[in-house]
Amino acid sequence: MAWHPLDQALQLQTLPDGQWLGQTSAAYANMVGPYGGISAAQLCQALLLHPQRLGDPLSLTVNFCAPVADGAFLITARPLRTNRSTQHWWLEMQQDGQTVLSGTAVTAVRRTTWSVDEAAMPEVAPPEQCPHSDAEATLAFARSFEIRSVSGDWPSVWDGRESASQSRIWLRDKPARPLDYASLTSLADLFFPRIYLRRATLVPIGTVLMTVYFHGRAEHLVQSGDDFLLGQAYAHAFRDGFFDQSSQLWSRTGVLLASSHQVVYYKQ
Amino acid sequence: MAWHPLDQALQLQTLPDGQWLGQTSAAYANMVGPYGGISAAQLCQALLLHPQRLGDPLSLTVNFCAPVADGAFLITARPLRTNRSTQHWWLEMQQDGQTVLSGTAVTAVRRTTWSVDEAAMPEVAPPEQCPHSDAEATLAFARSFEIRSVSGDWPSVWDGRESASQSRIWLRDKPARPLDYASLTSLADLFFPRIYLRRATLVPIGTVLMTVYFHGRAEHLVQSGDDFLLGQAYAHAFRDGFFDQSSQLWSRTGVLLASSHQVVYYKQ
Repeated sequence: MAWHPLDQALQLQTLPDGQWLGQTSAAYANMVGPYGGISAAQLCQALLLHPQRLGDPLSLTVNFCAPVADGAFLITARPLRTNRSTQHWWLEMQQDGQTVLSGTAVTAVRRTTWSVDEAAMPEVAPPEQCPHSDAEATLAFARSFEIRSVSGDWPSVWDGRESASQSRIWLRDKPARPLDYASLTSLADLFFPRIYLRRATLVPIGTVLMTVYFHGRAEHLVQSGDDFLLGQAYAHAFRDGFFDQSSQLWSRTGVLLASSHQVVYYKQ
Repeated sequence: MAWHPLDQALQLQTLPDGQWLGQTSAAYANMVGPYGGISAAQLCQALLLHPQRLGDPLSLTVNFCAPVADGAFLITARPLRTNRSTQHWWLEMQQDGQTVLSGTAVTAVRRTTWSVDEAAMPEVAPPEQCPHSDAEATLAFARSFEIRSVSGDWPSVWDGRESASQSRIWLRDKPARPLDYASLTSLADLFFPRIYLRRATLVPIGTVLMTVYFHGRAEHLVQSGDDFLLGQAYAHAFRDGFFDQSSQLWSRTGVLLASSHQVVYYKQ
């Protein structure tokens, strides 16, 4: 049986002292180097594999310091501080001795408490009734995902007409694969750059950093299985070469599993 | 002439190799140790003082690894990667050789481009017509700020009645002080924990990490002067001991200067 492309991309060879050796993956190729979400997922995977890890991921911040080149990379994960129920991490990906990604993460042992989702899942048509997004056909990595468009799809006409940057999509790995923290990290970066939607103009862009907050416990992820998630993304401001992008991801049953925030560079 | 309490708190003594020595400040005391926003501002200040800094702050992520004790602290700021127009930083605050804060930041040289604020400033009454928030009287640090309540104020009755977690406030340093990136960082953390508003119940809380995205260039901050900012904050999810909190800060004239996201621990 063939490996799932994501599991292949997440294959990390354990070295001593919290270091791992990995390889970029053709299934997640972007315009230059790999899809940012897969690089972030690889950092998350190192965290998940670390023998000193306490609890499950609560947050992950990844700085895209320089383009990741196709080929081998070295990941370092180091606990900076371990408390009773939270643990703070330093993360780094290097190529040829240079930092290409840096990051921090928090893992936590979660206990059952009073809980409520304030951001309720929007009421939308089920994924089976939504068309495949035009974004699926754009770049190599996008073909490793199933994206059903609810609203705010990839522009069909690039006429520079401005509109609000909010998109809603159903999304999952292709082929479908049970959700875990690494795949949730990758999915959180799947929204195409908001500036394309806002401006209906193609300009050079690059993600500078992203943060994922994991609201779901491991069992919430397991319950979601390989089903679609509903995602929503929008920007707050585009100014002088940088815009932000916020997103939320719900399970089909309406549990908010993750929210994510990023800063993206744009030219012009 | 006496120093402004914020400038006093931001006094850092330069050591060799990108290190600074600072002191916690009674004007920003919280229940245990200092107000998180002031610690984050101190990391930001080290970045601003660094002789190798390229451009202005674009984002700052601070992990609150352990409580900061009253007294001296050591800050380290180290550029991890310097590109043509962006620079990625590692930040750390230590006390007694232990990490109490860790962080990453990005600074950037910003060029004038097509720009738009998608998150328009809500239309609200001017600060002069809004009452002082009850939050001003809660803790020592809150007395170092002027907070005018627009909506969603500090609960007057703790009856456990649930309501939406959104607050809007006008806010600035007290005494009024011209805005800079360090004070903007501090102001971005001023919203009281959303769980108090959502549940009308006081429970033990602690910020785990926060990220500030700076949308404004230095001149936007200068233009804001020592005037009020309008702030808005809300949560997406409260689950199993952790909730998130997002906020936006606009200048009085309606320029989005910063947005911020944090994860907060809660008990029960």
